[in-house]
Amino acid sequence: LKDIKVTLIGLGNVGKPLCRLLAEEERRLAERCGVRFRLVGVCDSAGCAVDPEGLDPLEVLRAKEQTGSVSGLAGAGRPGMRADELIRTCGAQMLLECTPPSLPLGQPGLDHIRTALEYGMDVVTANKSPLAVAWQELFDTAERNGRQLRFSCAASAGLPTIEMGRFLGQCDELLEMAGVFNASCQFILERMAEGDTFEEGCAAARVGGFLEADPAMDVDGWDVAMKTVIQANAYFGAAVHLDEVACRGIRDITRADLLEAEAKGEKWMMVGRARKDGDRLILSAGPERLPKDHPLARANWCDKALYLKTRTQGEQIHYCLGASASGTPGSVLNDMIAIGQSR
Amino acid sequence: LKDIKVTLIGLGNVGKPLCRLLAEEERRLAERCGVRFRLVGVCDSAGCAVDPEGLDPLEVLRAKEQTGSVSGLAGAGRPGMRADELIRTCGAQMLLECTPPSLPLGQPGLDHIRTALEYGMDVVTANKSPLAVAWQELFDTAERNGRQLRFSCAASAGLPTIEMGRFLGQCDELLEMAGVFNASCQFILERMAEGDTFEEGCAAARVGGFLEADPAMDVDGWDVAMKTVIQANAYFGAAVHLDEVACRGIRDITRADLLEAEAKGEKWMMVGRARKDGDRLILSAGPERLPKDHPLARANWCDKALYLKTRTQGEQIHYCLGASASGTPGSVLNDMIAIGQSR
Repeated sequence: LKDIKVTLIGLGNVGKPLCRLLAEEERRLAERCGVRFRLVGVCDSAGCAVDPEGLDPLEVLRAKEQTGSVSGLAGAGRPGMRADELIRTCGAQMLLECTPPSLPLGQPGLDHIRTALEYGMDVVTANKSPLAVAWQELFDTAERNGRQLRFSCAASAGLPTIEMGRFLGQCDELLEMAGVFNASCQFILERMAEGDTFEEGCAAARVGGFLEADPAMDVDGWDVAMKTVIQANAYFGAAVHLDEVACRGIRDITRADLLEAEAKGEKWMMVGRARKDGDRLILSAGPERLPKDHPLARANWCDKALYLKTRTQGEQIHYCLGASASGTPGSVLNDMIAIGQSR
Repeated sequence: LKDIKVTLIGLGNVGKPLCRLLAEEERRLAERCGVRFRLVGVCDSAGCAVDPEGLDPLEVLRAKEQTGSVSGLAGAGRPGMRADELIRTCGAQMLLECTPPSLPLGQPGLDHIRTALEYGMDVVTANKSPLAVAWQELFDTAERNGRQLRFSCAASAGLPTIEMGRFLGQCDELLEMAGVFNASCQFILERMAEGDTFEEGCAAARVGGFLEADPAMDVDGWDVAMKTVIQANAYFGAAVHLDEVACRGIRDITRADLLEAEAKGEKWMMVGRARKDGDRLILSAGPERLPKDHPLARANWCDKALYLKTRTQGEQIHYCLGASASGTPGSVLNDMIAIGQSR
């Protein structure tokens, strides 16, 4: 059994269900995957909890719920302790970066990943923004320190296509990728087509719990743009920056636009796209009007879809069907297992 | 530029277009992939051609066409020379095994792969049968000799899901796979639904050029069974044998069966399936009646489809849209590039 000390930064939409998953899956991980993850540190915005022997993930959640912060955990709580100090002192072998995305600088997640890699830790990030603004630097740092930096859930949202896309890109087989990666945008567009205003659509998405804390991330296209950058870099072996994406949100799509598309047998989809033009990559994130029978337009609002145009394997379409609450933390866990088994 | 000597066994449905592809793509391979493949030996059923400096793939094709065998190639031709001798003497670093599948023994492909691995060659096989009957032995031999054995096009027929499935399996994330892997069966079933007899459907498939030389491979389910074994082994880290697949063909599906399904909004699909039952794998290949809106039933006859049920990432469906003549040789080439770049 490989015993791996991990530290978790961020106890929000990803961090909390991840704690639950670590508790629920502990036995399977030991029996079937040969790994044990020992949670030696956890950090939220008000402080940390630390225990070199390992915190109980369920107690972490209880403290968060009852006191508002993990730093309220009896014995282990460290009110006011910051992530940076935790990473330097907790002795973990793996960082789980689960703070919310933040643009244009990708902070504080970017610094968390930098520090962890320099302290010899492997990193799994659910936070897209550091990768979208500092890809080359972070992977250089990882390589220099002989560490892994994995990001499955920061790409096509749980559709596990990273290894496949990398293989195709390595063989110069991939010509273009395009995807539907953002449920909130698709949900809002569908509500608007049914008669809701943009604001009503947003409100309904918020009630459904699938609008980012900062809705601009979704509706202004930044979430899709970040996922496009990350996948383009992974698949094409590139190192593009978020600035290189022509990014447009859905705020200026009107009900008239939606009805006009409907009348012509078309549908507005929020699409991230990267295609090769010689040695350059042309990147975009924004609404596109597609024929209803286009493979991407066939995705329901809660599906994720990735379309690949290849040199010899024709056109491919990959769907993850239906929103799965466990998809994001599950994807973080898969990366943790893959790293754990390779160590 | 990595210069890699390769030898090709088999000049049929895969070997011939592969030669064409090697000629057409030579410049791209050098410029974009950093590899050059030098064809030092080619073998068909009547003999070989050998040139340590490299044969011109187009001259190989011309000799095959004009004299019936590559052994008719002026200067380089070796009438009567057998594959085994070629592999032992040609000094290649990579074997391309493209002979037709053969059951129950997987010969002569199995011996070709064994010999090549023991002589220190990497192997790319388009021939499924050796993998379906000797998986563990072949990968043990590859590992013992520090060689790679790749088989992208022998799995889901050009749908490049091997790396993805391996990742999911490694993380114990994969619960079940099922796929539609055989265009001939689907084509025949569709023709029968439109009124053709089974024999007429077979004849039309043969005219279309997508029925194996031995039609039993397709219509008795063995092609699907082999692909199921190969993918189950790759994805679940297993080592099952073809004998373990409950295999049934489409010969006993009647027009009445097809009409009855149609009347109930269902469709007969030729499906390969592998699911975990504790530590065991339950494997099947055969016709299944699926609801028309089932993701697998939505595949057209010329599409390939792979359905994956996962622990935390929900249900996924991967399609390769439309038959692509270049899919199989292209997939062999991708494996060649991946090996070349890793050497």
